[in-house]
Amino acid sequence: MSELGAAIRAGDRRALARGITLLESTRDDDRGAALELLGELQPYGGGALRVGVSGPPGAGKSTVIEALGTRLVDRGVRLGVAAIDPSSTRGGGSILGDRTRMEELSRREDAYIRPSPAGEASGGVARRSRETILLIEAWGAEVVLVETVGVGQSEVAVAGMVDQLMVLVTPGAGDELQGIKRGVMELADVIVVNKADGDLAAAAERSRAEYTAALSLMRPRYENLRTPVLCTSATEGTGLDEVWQAVEQRHATLSDDGRLATLRSHQAGEWLRSELQLELSAALERHPQARALAERRHTEVQEGRAFAPLAAREIISALLDEG
Amino acid sequence: MSELGAAIRAGDRRALARGITLLESTRDDDRGAALELLGELQPYGGGALRVGVSGPPGAGKSTVIEALGTRLVDRGVRLGVAAIDPSSTRGGGSILGDRTRMEELSRREDAYIRPSPAGEASGGVARRSRETILLIEAWGAEVVLVETVGVGQSEVAVAGMVDQLMVLVTPGAGDELQGIKRGVMELADVIVVNKADGDLAAAAERSRAEYTAALSLMRPRYENLRTPVLCTSATEGTGLDEVWQAVEQRHATLSDDGRLATLRSHQAGEWLRSELQLELSAALERHPQARALAERRHTEVQEGRAFAPLAAREIISALLDEG
Repeated sequence: MSELGAAIRAGDRRALARGITLLESTRDDDRGAALELLGELQPYGGGALRVGVSGPPGAGKSTVIEALGTRLVDRGVRLGVAAIDPSSTRGGGSILGDRTRMEELSRREDAYIRPSPAGEASGGVARRSRETILLIEAWGAEVVLVETVGVGQSEVAVAGMVDQLMVLVTPGAGDELQGIKRGVMELADVIVVNKADGDLAAAAERSRAEYTAALSLMRPRYENLRTPVLCTSATEGTGLDEVWQAVEQRHATLSDDGRLATLRSHQAGEWLRSELQLELSAALERHPQARALAERRHTEVQEGRAFAPLAAREIISALLDEG
Repeated sequence: MSELGAAIRAGDRRALARGITLLESTRDDDRGAALELLGELQPYGGGALRVGVSGPPGAGKSTVIEALGTRLVDRGVRLGVAAIDPSSTRGGGSILGDRTRMEELSRREDAYIRPSPAGEASGGVARRSRETILLIEAWGAEVVLVETVGVGQSEVAVAGMVDQLMVLVTPGAGDELQGIKRGVMELADVIVVNKADGDLAAAAERSRAEYTAALSLMRPRYENLRTPVLCTSATEGTGLDEVWQAVEQRHATLSDDGRLATLRSHQAGEWLRSELQLELSAALERHPQARALAERRHTEVQEGRAFAPLAAREIISALLDEG
């Protein structure tokens, strides 16, 4: 095993940081080294409970992670926190600064916090994030929290790489600006109404009832398993133990009955599928004629001037230098 | 243009049926002929308002389509109905018999009803359905209704090829067995509580209120555009005009502000992407070594014994006869 790989396996936090920096690099030779490192550490991945934490800006994701994470570390759990922020490509960088906001947690030796890399396309974000989780697991994390801001496809991407998705909302969710993104409700394993304190306590309880009612109109994600809706105040520290208890209980149920194994196997298959697509795109990039054809046909298909099945056939033929 | 293509363009219903049978064929030479036909007719597609009709078994999809469709045809609209039923692969065939149940509609000359093909994998279902819609449009349909049973991924597939998705539910939806599938709420453009008659009228009104409340907790699919929730009784013929009015009004808004064009262009791009994936799979099928490698690695990745990014790189290299 490489020196870097061995250091990560030994629980060296700086080595882990260096490893993740390597796999975020866009330089071609770094990519080769990153793949080698990942190949080495792959057998040591998969050991953590992976939980996505999503929610609209202002729902208190960082505060909840800081509070939950500190409790976990205090209980002797080794913890990794990774952030996925597709919006960072657009210069928003809305969760890039979270490390500094998780001051207490970031001082703990048994916690590693990785902010999201800047400037990545959405396919790339998912790729790097899966790899980051793997490295954090090889480092020895027992829990990995994957934070994502509630914009568009990010929750879907995160849901495809975690065991459970926790969705944070704020009281008064009837207000559309605060509303949960449609489609995220589908993915939620646990819904947390945060900021249930002071003036908002009553509103939080109302929101909890509303979300529970809304969920009762939908089939549960897993048969015979309800999606819990819980109130917390991360600043006052209330409700957090109940939230983590719910996550652990669900994890135990899904582990015992084999549905977690099915989920992970499915996620791995999807990962391969998405990597095949990325490798196909890369192969097209390397092939000037096929690439030019693909770009032209893509525009034509979008404008209704070309027919997708024929265009796809042509592009793959050009790539394989057939006919 | 081929004789068959010209006959379809001329509005010949039997020719349309033959064309669709051709594209449903799994014979290799038929596939070539089908692609030729589709290529010819592609410039004449896209002219219809495409509406998906989804809902759990027993929600009354066929009855609603029969009642709505008959009204449309009476108003001089040429109508196509296609069914997508991924469950038919599993021998369920739950919506295969719909043509016989839409007795009145199937007698109208200006209506064409196509049951779903049996025995197709899910990627294949989407492919055939998009092609079927195109042929129905080239035949001159102004409205295409795409019926799908509410199982798993079918609504997602349908939502990717229609302008609007209508989701049917039955009164008393608090009962989980009748509940809307999670994730489908996300995709709904209009929710219809059917069977709002007799003893169920009051329950339907309550369900309408509940779904409206649930939707208010989520951001609307389109900014500044609410998802209407309406009650109907397809057997008594009430509420249907209001439903179609809502669909048409939404269609007008989305057409005028350019969001329909954006949606269709996005759908076309996704179509090309999915065709590229199918063609890639086909190319792998034709390449014995790459195919064997892909199968092996897929199992290994799912079992956690291989690393997806490396596996994908290997498979694409084998396919391109690199290295």
